[in-house]
Amino acid sequence: MPTATRARGFSDTIQNTMSSSGTTHAIRGGIDLGGTKIEAIIVDDANTVLGSSRKPTPTEGAPKDVAEQIVAAITGAASAAGLKPSELLGVGVGSPGVIDTETGAVRGARNLPGWEGSFELADTLSDRLGTPVRVGNDVQVATEAEFHLGAGKPYQSLLGVFWGTGVGGGLILDGKPWVGRGGAGEIGHVVVKLDGAQCPCGRRGCMEAYAGRGAMEARARKLADDGRKTDLFKLMRHRDRTRLTSSIWAHALEHKDPVATEIIDRAITALGAGIASAVNLIDVGAVIIGGGLGLRFGQPYVKRIATEMQPHLFNDARPPDVLLAALGDLGGGLGAALLVAPPAAD
Amino acid sequence: MPTATRARGFSDTIQNTMSSSGTTHAIRGGIDLGGTKIEAIIVDDANTVLGSSRKPTPTEGAPKDVAEQIVAAITGAASAAGLKPSELLGVGVGSPGVIDTETGAVRGARNLPGWEGSFELADTLSDRLGTPVRVGNDVQVATEAEFHLGAGKPYQSLLGVFWGTGVGGGLILDGKPWVGRGGAGEIGHVVVKLDGAQCPCGRRGCMEAYAGRGAMEARARKLADDGRKTDLFKLMRHRDRTRLTSSIWAHALEHKDPVATEIIDRAITALGAGIASAVNLIDVGAVIIGGGLGLRFGQPYVKRIATEMQPHLFNDARPPDVLLAALGDLGGGLGAALLVAPPAAD
Repeated sequence: MPTATRARGFSDTIQNTMSSSGTTHAIRGGIDLGGTKIEAIIVDDANTVLGSSRKPTPTEGAPKDVAEQIVAAITGAASAAGLKPSELLGVGVGSPGVIDTETGAVRGARNLPGWEGSFELADTLSDRLGTPVRVGNDVQVATEAEFHLGAGKPYQSLLGVFWGTGVGGGLILDGKPWVGRGGAGEIGHVVVKLDGAQCPCGRRGCMEAYAGRGAMEARARKLADDGRKTDLFKLMRHRDRTRLTSSIWAHALEHKDPVATEIIDRAITALGAGIASAVNLIDVGAVIIGGGLGLRFGQPYVKRIATEMQPHLFNDARPPDVLLAALGDLGGGLGAALLVAPPAAD
Repeated sequence: MPTATRARGFSDTIQNTMSSSGTTHAIRGGIDLGGTKIEAIIVDDANTVLGSSRKPTPTEGAPKDVAEQIVAAITGAASAAGLKPSELLGVGVGSPGVIDTETGAVRGARNLPGWEGSFELADTLSDRLGTPVRVGNDVQVATEAEFHLGAGKPYQSLLGVFWGTGVGGGLILDGKPWVGRGGAGEIGHVVVKLDGAQCPCGRRGCMEAYAGRGAMEARARKLADDGRKTDLFKLMRHRDRTRLTSSIWAHALEHKDPVATEIIDRAITALGAGIASAVNLIDVGAVIIGGGLGLRFGQPYVKRIATEMQPHLFNDARPPDVLLAALGDLGGGLGAALLVAPPAAD
């Protein structure tokens, strides 16, 4: 994956927020730490993006190698904004795995290399960058970004559904994040079919077993092996990829590939049932659909999900609003930056 | 159904809480308004039951006839406690249907006669009883009773599951009831099997389609009509009942009736999946099982539900505590009485 560094929306504002000591009052960094890429952004106090940088996530090594790449990404983004990392008010990181939000330690981030155990991510980054670092759950910070800055702004309570390799979820209830005992939001693992399809998590019948990109790819391979006609893997090889990316799925759907169409129809059916179940339980006013597949497929598929939810809604006369995430790929970084300077309660 | 009026736990306390005007400071009435019976209790400020009365719910007529029967029940319970209704601090009612908690109007209580529209229940009762009346959702007040006074006391967040004719749910999150936009808690209508069994609600694959007493009875009739051997309906006729009550199910299970065993196994499987889905989403520390079937089957079945939840829990190393409701049949009335004098926040 190429490394990209660019300035965006850079303005005089930044000079105005410089304090006499050389640090800025409200210029913050945000890191979206994903399994394939690390996206860093620098934002001002109005959450305008002043610079950004993207690095590939290391596929081998140890957590410290991932931390080094995060340092490189935030340094690149700061540079694009005309700053050094030490001049930032702080840096927030949205991370997979189990997060200790007090200490900034991350454990069991299984999509990242050598990260089964615990690693002091916040302390390591803070030492290297010379600025405070806070770590939060990747899906939860993206949900908070949509709540404070994106499609969720008009609502007090919402469910964020991040439809990508897996299906993650985040909750805002009555204006505040709801994390339960620390593990809430696992919408991907609501059961939509008893004794159903095998999920990458090892269980059966989870929503993610039908709708996650990973599970869909496994299904496509099986159908192709069974002799079903599909261009999905031809497209993958043609594009020199090793997995069925969201853009490959989108291309195949546009060309009415029968296997892709069947698998996506099945995914939408599962998303409709699982999200409706969540709404029947918690009755939020809005559902926001993001994630790699959600963003790639866009509004027409958000509408399809809402349509599939309808027959399962107990209060079917008052469905929630179902909306596309408004912040796109930037949601994760913007939400991470909010960890440093949380917005005032609405 | 016979009408029963009895005094229980009546003590000198009541005289001590009499004010000079003749009304009491903290003696309250609580009504559990069900589809088959109306249970009235009188409680003191320690939530000790001072008297109770039970009346059958009218099966014909209009909401005003139900209101008259509520008046009779609360008058009987007050009499058992040596009081007149007008001497109570107030009366709370836990009602089915859609409740306007501000005005105490109830609409769409479909299990009650002629109650499709809206009826000013609080105002009607208050005029007749000479004391303030507040109305809340039956399942939500029973959940609050377990939270403040019963099995939920050690927890800050919990899910109440009321396993009876239907399967209702109530939520306490961070010490407070969570009702969403007014319709939260419909755990009975989380989808556990896409394209699954027909639910009494008209949808397919809901948890209640497998676990509700109504759905289980319909299934038993179908299997009996198909020639499967069962004593369920023989027991029903023998006991002069028109439906398969929870005690008939319990008796058939004790005698290893094959149809009853198969249907209950299926119900427990569905409860396990549906409740685990809810826990995956909201990650509460406790699940409390009540309702007619839950209370009748008791602790061994609560344990079976917990066992069936386990394979579906995403955080399977930290399952929630799964507990039997501690207040039994009195939960609804005790919770309703809390509407009049809510306990201080824990």
